[in-house]
Amino acid sequence: MRAAGVAGTGLALGRKAAATTEASPNPLLEVFAKRQSVRQYKPDPVPEEHLRLILEAARRAPTAMNQQPWKFLVIRDKEKIARMKQRVMDATLKPIDARLQQQTNVDEKDLEPRRKAIASVEGYFSAPVYVVVLTDNECPWPDSAKHDGPLAAGYLILAARALGYGTCYITGSIPEAVTREVLNIPARYTRVCITPIGIPDGWPPFRPKKKLEDLVAYESL
Amino acid sequence: MRAAGVAGTGLALGRKAAATTEASPNPLLEVFAKRQSVRQYKPDPVPEEHLRLILEAARRAPTAMNQQPWKFLVIRDKEKIARMKQRVMDATLKPIDARLQQQTNVDEKDLEPRRKAIASVEGYFSAPVYVVVLTDNECPWPDSAKHDGPLAAGYLILAARALGYGTCYITGSIPEAVTREVLNIPARYTRVCITPIGIPDGWPPFRPKKKLEDLVAYESL
Repeated sequence: MRAAGVAGTGLALGRKAAATTEASPNPLLEVFAKRQSVRQYKPDPVPEEHLRLILEAARRAPTAMNQQPWKFLVIRDKEKIARMKQRVMDATLKPIDARLQQQTNVDEKDLEPRRKAIASVEGYFSAPVYVVVLTDNECPWPDSAKHDGPLAAGYLILAARALGYGTCYITGSIPEAVTREVLNIPARYTRVCITPIGIPDGWPPFRPKKKLEDLVAYESL
Repeated sequence: MRAAGVAGTGLALGRKAAATTEASPNPLLEVFAKRQSVRQYKPDPVPEEHLRLILEAARRAPTAMNQQPWKFLVIRDKEKIARMKQRVMDATLKPIDARLQQQTNVDEKDLEPRRKAIASVEGYFSAPVYVVVLTDNECPWPDSAKHDGPLAAGYLILAARALGYGTCYITGSIPEAVTREVLNIPARYTRVCITPIGIPDGWPPFRPKKKLEDLVAYESL
């Protein structure tokens, strides 16, 4: 098996990792710093081998009493993706169009929010594969599943980044009801999130972050 | 800055990572597979440099609308750790001792659960440093903080493993009330978990896991 990785996607992997010294002292920790939410993807498919590596990493997340309450629902069917997109698009445009219809004169500038909304929804649905992360409400410790779910989703996302892929931990932007209805997800499962996986259509700029000092307290708050 | 890592703690890092080829195709993904919950630590301190790298990784977790609602409360004060331990020990032994006191004859075998309980609590509190992961209820999107909290804690734990340290995502075994009272954590903060960080006193055996096939569904459940 060759070293897994995606050429030219911005992350030193495998043998290349040994070359990083001064700038990034630890290639493993470099992945955390390089992860960011991606909202526009290239259509290139994610090889099954990579998808399995990503899911293997996800299911190694901490889980209370080793209960592993997860289901990872993988969606590559373009028809299903298109149906989700249509549902989200309709819901997104409805209030915008209602507002526009109340206006007597609509000029180019008034249409800008509509164009942006369309581009945003199209971006979310531009990836070749989606994973819906679920937890099973019938697991032994459902309260702990509230931790287990985000933990596995977070590991999935980080592993994808390690392989050079972009992701986005989506909750509100693709509403739970849309995934539940289009993908026939039974009530037995709690949806944690849905994430696209794909090669980014360019890595977005890094978002500004709080100072570490503002997040860390030593000994007392 | 030299390549960060802890010698002899079981994980190929930095230059060593380049040597891994066949057995572990990607040293970045190897970390996920090697992470496990550690419940007995060596007393060796965690260098400040490593602790900062771990916290830097934690706060790079996905966070809704970039809200970063986290507080990482770092505890190294042995007195505080001892007070938490005493509280947990008392609560653990109380029902065991009550049961023993009701018995007319107590032999060596009857005392075994008590010894095991003591060893377990001592193990949880054998680390040199603890991080309480908190989210701020006054953050802009408290509902999303339910995701942000475990995400950051999971990244913290994985980054610690990347540097050769053991951790344990603890909720019930060190009750929230104990951390809240001993460490004076205001009601404003939700406790996500508390984790020890330290060099494992031996890596525990890996726990059996479900088959990947049982966790993954393609296209429909």
